Amino acid sequence: MQKFFIHPTSIVDTQHIGQSTSIWAFAHVMKNARIGSNCNIGDHCFIESGAIIGHDVTIKNGSMIWEGVTLEDGVFVGPDVLFTNDRHPRSPRLAQARKRYSTRAWLSPTFVRRGASIGAGAIIIAGIAIGEFAMVGAGAVVAQDIPPYALVTGSPARVRGWVCQCGQPLKFQEGLATCNDCGLSYVKDADSVSLATRNL
Amino acid sequence: MQKFFIHPTSIVDTQHIGQSTSIWAFAHVMKNARIGSNCNIGDHCFIESGAIIGHDVTIKNGSMIWEGVTLEDGVFVGPDVLFTNDRHPRSPRLAQARKRYSTRAWLSPTFVRRGASIGAGAIIIAGIAIGEFAMVGAGAVVAQDIPPYALVTGSPARVRGWVCQCGQPLKFQEGLATCNDCGLSYVKDADSVSLATRNL
Amino acid sequence: MQKFFIHPTSIVDTQHIGQSTSIWAFAHVMKNARIGSNCNIGDHCFIESGAIIGHDVTIKNGSMIWEGVTLEDGVFVGPDVLFTNDRHPRSPRLAQARKRYSTRAWLSPTFVRRGASIGAGAIIIAGIAIGEFAMVGAGAVVAQDIPPYALVTGSPARVRGWVCQCGQPLKFQEGLATCNDCGLSYVKDADSVSLATRNL
Repeated sequence: MQKFFIHPTSIVDTQHIGQSTSIWAFAHVMKNARIGSNCNIGDHCFIESGAIIGHDVTIKNGSMIWEGVTLEDGVFVGPDVLFTNDRHPRSPRLAQARKRYSTRAWLSPTFVRRGASIGAGAIIIAGIAIGEFAMVGAGAVVAQDIPPYALVTGSPARVRGWVCQCGQPLKFQEGLATCNDCGLSYVKDADSVSLATRNL
Repeated sequence: MQKFFIHPTSIVDTQHIGQSTSIWAFAHVMKNARIGSNCNIGDHCFIESGAIIGHDVTIKNGSMIWEGVTLEDGVFVGPDVLFTNDRHPRSPRLAQARKRYSTRAWLSPTFVRRGASIGAGAIIIAGIAIGEFAMVGAGAVVAQDIPPYALVTGSPARVRGWVCQCGQPLKFQEGLATCNDCGLSYVKDADSVSLATRNL
Repeated sequence: MQKFFIHPTSIVDTQHIGQSTSIWAFAHVMKNARIGSNCNIGDHCFIESGAIIGHDVTIKNGSMIWEGVTLEDGVFVGPDVLFTNDRHPRSPRLAQARKRYSTRAWLSPTFVRRGASIGAGAIIIAGIAIGEFAMVGAGAVVAQDIPPYALVTGSPARVRGWVCQCGQPLKFQEGLATCNDCGLSYVKDADSVSLATRNL
């Protein structure tokens, strides 16, 4: 009984793939990468050994998830999103960089929290965390931590607004907002947004 | 008699490909995508069901043309150009986004008009139109409509100048410009450029 | 005796590959491209005829090296880095652009000097040179020459600091800096940095 789908042109070397996950054409998943259940990994994606991907994650075509990157449950990664894991990269084959790559100290981890979205072609500088249900605009260059529910765009990415768990922009009045689309309510306090207690 | 060329490593599931079109290595064209005649689709491209591509179009390597995107005749799409079709994407597998993806209301179409060019790695936010013979600079993030013949660069993209149908920059004097290269003449009126009537 | 490694899913049409070089999955190297020894070319890369790549070069996944681009020894090219070779591209299939593409005058060369690094998703506008051991930040759009040892970021890319041959940022005091990591010393003079003579 086949539990997940692997396109015949893709290369999948890991044993750690959850049920109902699909991996599409020309994708490459390396040994010891971990992918949860009910995920969708698009064409031409590359998932490196050591990458950790939760359940219900959608990764659009051409994105690369390196060692050191963790995507929690329900994350959306748009097409050609670029994670990184080295803030000052050199060719490891360059004599002058041999010491740099003789240990793992160069590796900076990245975390994308539950339900967050990253738009097409966004670039995530190594060593940061993207808060739960945050939304990174297409083409943004993210160089610092992003708070939960924040909508960020630009290079460098800055907070431009706030979004609901369902993805719709939120409009706050006197620190309160209710999503027109799904009805969830939020409170805003200084620079942070959280679910209103009446939802809980 | 072979009417078009498909590289043996590519996957082409549509019947709608025009004469003399070439599709190169590791590209994937889905069922019901439409591609005109005399086009060139580079390595690692992805053309989704519902995408519409005219005649004489060049798409460089790694670009993705999604459902909702229309490229008119003679368009140039540079390498790794990113179209989008959802302004507030979530993982469709996320429980909180289920309602959002239960209809097609999330899909915003994009139009690239006749003869326009889009530079390497440019990102086109869903729901806009790029005017005929406009030129989008490499790495630009385009979030609003672009007028015909405009040269736009930056993030967000802004009009920096104007270009001829042949691609050369135009220099206006008292509202008139003639291309040094191909001889076509243009008139500029406030924020729009059009062919001079003497060309017509 | 096999002198280099070519992944079985890649396409390599050139004869000019140096010893101990590896070319990974779904990559495509065209005829008459030149690649030195001890290089690593990642998955989904594309190396065009006429591209010139030195020794000890690392090219991460999905990057494209076009005709007109030269990478000297020890260069690092991050994932999805985009070189270009035409400053005003049109579809060569467009009738109005036929004259433009009837000669090679449209082609602008690019040089990346010894030991330089280019971060993920950076875009290099055709016709420039990146100085030796310079470092281009992820997502930068580089439109002019970069001096040796400079760290540049942003769109358009600007000099934000200086880096050592080994990759570490340098802190200058009264025009002198010594790398904490590898011990090399540098002098800064107006807008340029060079190795201190005591290293030589």
